[in-house]
Amino acid sequence: MEKIAVIGGGSWATALVKILSENRSEIHWWMRQQDDIKHLLQYHHNPRYLSGVSFDLDYVKPSVDLEAVVKAADWVILAVPGAFVQNAIASLPKTAFEGKVMVSAIKGMIPNENCLITDYLEKHYNVPASHQCVIAGPCHAEEVALEKQSYLTIGSHDLDNANRFCELLRNRYVKANPLGDIDGIEYCAVMKNIIALACGIAHGLGFGDNFQAVMVSNAMDEIDRFLNAVMPQHRSLVGSAYLGDLLVTAYSQFSRNRTFGNMIGRGYSVKSAQFEMNMIAEGYYAVQSIYELNKKYKVDMPITTAVYNILYERISPTVEMEILKEKFK
Amino acid sequence: MEKIAVIGGGSWATALVKILSENRSEIHWWMRQQDDIKHLLQYHHNPRYLSGVSFDLDYVKPSVDLEAVVKAADWVILAVPGAFVQNAIASLPKTAFEGKVMVSAIKGMIPNENCLITDYLEKHYNVPASHQCVIAGPCHAEEVALEKQSYLTIGSHDLDNANRFCELLRNRYVKANPLGDIDGIEYCAVMKNIIALACGIAHGLGFGDNFQAVMVSNAMDEIDRFLNAVMPQHRSLVGSAYLGDLLVTAYSQFSRNRTFGNMIGRGYSVKSAQFEMNMIAEGYYAVQSIYELNKKYKVDMPITTAVYNILYERISPTVEMEILKEKFK
Repeated sequence: MEKIAVIGGGSWATALVKILSENRSEIHWWMRQQDDIKHLLQYHHNPRYLSGVSFDLDYVKPSVDLEAVVKAADWVILAVPGAFVQNAIASLPKTAFEGKVMVSAIKGMIPNENCLITDYLEKHYNVPASHQCVIAGPCHAEEVALEKQSYLTIGSHDLDNANRFCELLRNRYVKANPLGDIDGIEYCAVMKNIIALACGIAHGLGFGDNFQAVMVSNAMDEIDRFLNAVMPQHRSLVGSAYLGDLLVTAYSQFSRNRTFGNMIGRGYSVKSAQFEMNMIAEGYYAVQSIYELNKKYKVDMPITTAVYNILYERISPTVEMEILKEKFK
Repeated sequence: MEKIAVIGGGSWATALVKILSENRSEIHWWMRQQDDIKHLLQYHHNPRYLSGVSFDLDYVKPSVDLEAVVKAADWVILAVPGAFVQNAIASLPKTAFEGKVMVSAIKGMIPNENCLITDYLEKHYNVPASHQCVIAGPCHAEEVALEKQSYLTIGSHDLDNANRFCELLRNRYVKANPLGDIDGIEYCAVMKNIIALACGIAHGLGFGDNFQAVMVSNAMDEIDRFLNAVMPQHRSLVGSAYLGDLLVTAYSQFSRNRTFGNMIGRGYSVKSAQFEMNMIAEGYYAVQSIYELNKKYKVDMPITTAVYNILYERISPTVEMEILKEKFK
């Protein structure tokens, strides 16, 4: 029986616990709130997210003790928002992840350091690249809860680890495939949230489906340019882990980034949109990190620039969308 | 003043007449029904499609006399369904298009001959490749009627002609760009209807957004393989005229191909779905042409094969979708 730590109690963490525990891995699940754990132990579901999903407590062991959770596992899945990961694991000793395979389910970056999660773990926790995986895929947690057919891509420099983790995930409604381009899919997962936010803004301003299709096409070029600057290698961006992941976010009713963008487009301030939504849109942080990082690479990134200007420089969405309109092809 | 013939009275023809006549080209508009022309002359709109759009009759001249319409123009836009184009122009002499630039707004192929519209015009009407253009783009006619920002791509082997036609289209809500890969975008426009149909079938069977994103990603690979077999050249398939056109069709509420597929997925027979919809889904014909054509090229085309088997071989959508599910990555 594989022993897996899951750090985080959000919807994506909950979906992963469902998939992995149903396959009879032993899940050590770190959640922040003792009350949620009580509820989980009594009613067998997470009170906050995907509460229709029932867990078999023979396989799911919730705990607030992060160090014990990590210690008990061979695999450690990080599934908290990128902006909170530093804080979430700050209490752990720097050697806590020694010998373990780290799996990032985070679609965001480390703020301030503007680095990927995998880079952060390598730098601060000495986790070698070979012991890191990333979960990507066009995959809404909500559809996993409904057991709708889904596909995940596991990126790793070590394809053996990627393959082993794929095995832990596969079931009748989940297909999983390994991929070597871990950095590419990690950046792509970050950038898709920025694009979904931009799509939401356009929608909020009254742009239609024709414009959104052009936005996504131009976004694929923008992502391509950025990836080629940051880590040049041959990759086909139309794969599920790249284009698929962008589509499921940019076109879906479940996407909080799109929803957040939509409110901005309709005239909400950043503060009031965040207050109203009561959850974090990863794209809000991601756009700052990518924008800052790109000062080094100087890639032409009109969509990222527009979203950054709207959210951080208080430039009107109408003005920025007019600029994009002229640039798009 | 440019003189443009528009052959066809459907929604896309109507949208093009709106754009071109507002830019003060003289439009000679061939419609089949004398009653529709009467209505147009009296009330200034097309009674059947986009009836909110009002036309300035100083620039729009409707007629049932096809030969006169063609004779009066320097540009001839074909905007009838691919399956009907042979019939629609059969009454014309083979020299009718001499000296004119032909513009195909058709997203389909010639049935039986299984060839592109441009190839058909070259073969049967002696129109040289340099005198042919194709209008592509992620562009719902319904959004043009609402003057939502839209983008069109004009493909031609003759970029001067493409550029000139772009000029005739550009206005405050339409951007137009020329492109050399006329055959690529013409095939892509045909195939996107097949993919939209497949997306509809999957939706009708209860598959969700996760699956649709994977379907579209795999479809892009399928289109890429086919184009590379039929006409190998370097092209970036994430452009608006390729990916964008697919997205607007596969994800939109306006798409009749997706709607038709949805009914098939829900268990309607082909006949009853067609009867219920009372309009033609281009993908129904397109899939037969591409399937037949591919017997020569033998490209691996799982989505096209699945749709063909469902529509023409009466194999159950559930069975075909199970096969696709296993093939997708």
